[in-house]
Amino acid sequence: MDKVYLDSLKLHKKFKGKLGVTSKVPIKNKKDLSLAYTPGVAEVCRVIAKNKNLANIYTLKRNTVAVVTDGSAILGLGNLGPEAAIPVMEGKAILFKEFAGVDAFPICLDTQDTEEIIKTIKYLAPVFGGINLEDISAPRCFEIENRLKKELSIPVLHDDQHGTATVVLAAMINALKLKKMNKSVTRVVISGAGAAGTAVAKILVKYGFKNVFVCDSKGLLYEKRGDLSGVKLDLAKLTNPQVPTDSSLKGVLKKADVFIGISGPNIIGRAEVKSMNARPVVLALANPVPEIMPKEAKAGGAYIVASGRSDFPNQINNVLAFPGIFRGALDNQVTEITDEMLIKAAENLAGYVKKISPDNILPNPLDKGVVKVIAKAIK
Amino acid sequence: MDKVYLDSLKLHKKFKGKLGVTSKVPIKNKKDLSLAYTPGVAEVCRVIAKNKNLANIYTLKRNTVAVVTDGSAILGLGNLGPEAAIPVMEGKAILFKEFAGVDAFPICLDTQDTEEIIKTIKYLAPVFGGINLEDISAPRCFEIENRLKKELSIPVLHDDQHGTATVVLAAMINALKLKKMNKSVTRVVISGAGAAGTAVAKILVKYGFKNVFVCDSKGLLYEKRGDLSGVKLDLAKLTNPQVPTDSSLKGVLKKADVFIGISGPNIIGRAEVKSMNARPVVLALANPVPEIMPKEAKAGGAYIVASGRSDFPNQINNVLAFPGIFRGALDNQVTEITDEMLIKAAENLAGYVKKISPDNILPNPLDKGVVKVIAKAIK
Repeated sequence: MDKVYLDSLKLHKKFKGKLGVTSKVPIKNKKDLSLAYTPGVAEVCRVIAKNKNLANIYTLKRNTVAVVTDGSAILGLGNLGPEAAIPVMEGKAILFKEFAGVDAFPICLDTQDTEEIIKTIKYLAPVFGGINLEDISAPRCFEIENRLKKELSIPVLHDDQHGTATVVLAAMINALKLKKMNKSVTRVVISGAGAAGTAVAKILVKYGFKNVFVCDSKGLLYEKRGDLSGVKLDLAKLTNPQVPTDSSLKGVLKKADVFIGISGPNIIGRAEVKSMNARPVVLALANPVPEIMPKEAKAGGAYIVASGRSDFPNQINNVLAFPGIFRGALDNQVTEITDEMLIKAAENLAGYVKKISPDNILPNPLDKGVVKVIAKAIK
Repeated sequence: MDKVYLDSLKLHKKFKGKLGVTSKVPIKNKKDLSLAYTPGVAEVCRVIAKNKNLANIYTLKRNTVAVVTDGSAILGLGNLGPEAAIPVMEGKAILFKEFAGVDAFPICLDTQDTEEIIKTIKYLAPVFGGINLEDISAPRCFEIENRLKKELSIPVLHDDQHGTATVVLAAMINALKLKKMNKSVTRVVISGAGAAGTAVAKILVKYGFKNVFVCDSKGLLYEKRGDLSGVKLDLAKLTNPQVPTDSSLKGVLKKADVFIGISGPNIIGRAEVKSMNARPVVLALANPVPEIMPKEAKAGGAYIVASGRSDFPNQINNVLAFPGIFRGALDNQVTEITDEMLIKAAENLAGYVKKISPDNILPNPLDKGVVKVIAKAIK
């Protein structure tokens, strides 16, 4: 087994998980107890009962986010169930805290029924100032997010979609600066039409990209393919302005400027990169094994290569986005996180890179200044 | 407004609530990130997917309790809804942490439907090692607790019932030591047939008290009263061996040895205490205003007086019980908290008082040794 896996198991066992709670107020004597608990707390209850918005002033609500999953699409590992999802949700929760000071708590639901998930999250909402949906499989994730956005008055974000889309857009903005290309003529091929692929395609189109092509495992999505419905059919209509004769991923990639992989390991090789336009951009984000290894992509002529991994240059990681998105949403009492806010966040993130170069199109995920520039956009 | 209320509002506003989360593991560099989050965390997920019990080893589950309410019976304030319940649940959560090192998180549900509450808690269970039900009104609280005990494999405890019952039993054990009376002949009158009153009556009967009388607002519960059903009818059958001619609370109190009030403010006076047997025990637990003020009870001849308040001697407070109960349940991997465990906990709690006297029948709630003696019983 890889050392990183062994060491991670050891770490989790040693600390018995990663997240704990802590009291923000002193409880050392009877007076402390009388203020933090009975009888004093009764007045806080009465005040909130008269105006429930005051929960934002007097309780943890204003700074607390639920990280909610049903365990149906954990990382790239698939449907492992709610218990197996806990380490990832706990991980996100501690990143929320460390990077943005947001108190986040993992909620791993023992149901994968769309309506039950929606209802349960609505029941849970009183305690939380925001809902971060995570690792819920497509297409259920779209319905769940859309419904909750409509039915709740706190911000709801499916991070696999919009966190990813925000960071990819930031990477694209800087990549095009380096290539000195205009977004309206750049030909972008996305491999993967799940949660992340869909959101990336949509934000690129909204941002002004005119030539976005999305492929699933069967090749290009286009209206007349015959087997598309729902979200994929909508996506086909929104993207793919022309259908090439060869509508396989390889066919579509010919003469493309950008490849964005959000699908699975090793699906393209050096030859496919060579078939693209000169000096292409390759963002191979499948984790832990990318669509093509960076070295191979470079050997195929790629000018800019990014991956989801921390051991290669240009790490495209959601941690660049989600802590700041919720920091901004909570601080500015945003009730809905819009595409416009996320586009602004991507622009801020791209602009935060001091000296862009092919190996430096995004900030370091550990740079704590990132949260501020993202949060500034969410208002 | 009372100073304690004003000060409590100020405290809650200043700290923006009372509960925060914290990372137990370092996240200072890329290596930390690779172990606590991707890619290392993937292995922890895979291991748990193969055996979900391992969530107890590798995640927060083993040390984490949900404090769940629907806001239907907040303190003695009534049905104020889930937002108004947050300050109390947050308060319990920080007490869990401070006294027992248990990580607890408030869940305030936006539904008061029994079946929906049961289902929601089952959906939430994967992340938690125990469920503390709180401030849910009777009789729904009985059904919810019973069903969850059957349907979940983690310990479930309705603290208003069993936390209270445990502490009252401990107080009774020491009170009878001082009075040199046997439980089988002691005549006990309980005012209040809600969650706490029911649980107190049941644990006293189980412990061997033979003369327990329970009154609700209409007087004594007895089988032929005609208006009883469900839990109250069961309770009538279990208790009240004889029906006095005057079955009002005042009537039943005559010649009683112990009054336990878990009902409401100022419902008895000095005269009623005088009507009891010589040197009676008065546990007047309504909060913040007891069934009779301690001074009045003493003036009526009471030998031992206790209340729920921290500003009088003999504070009967659940905080003496719930942190230790869950500390023991989590440490000993108890799947169900039984009456026998709670009786043992009460005995341990009573035995922990070094020098008992009429004004010292219970330990100080701030004494951190209490958790250990309680926890020892829950196995």
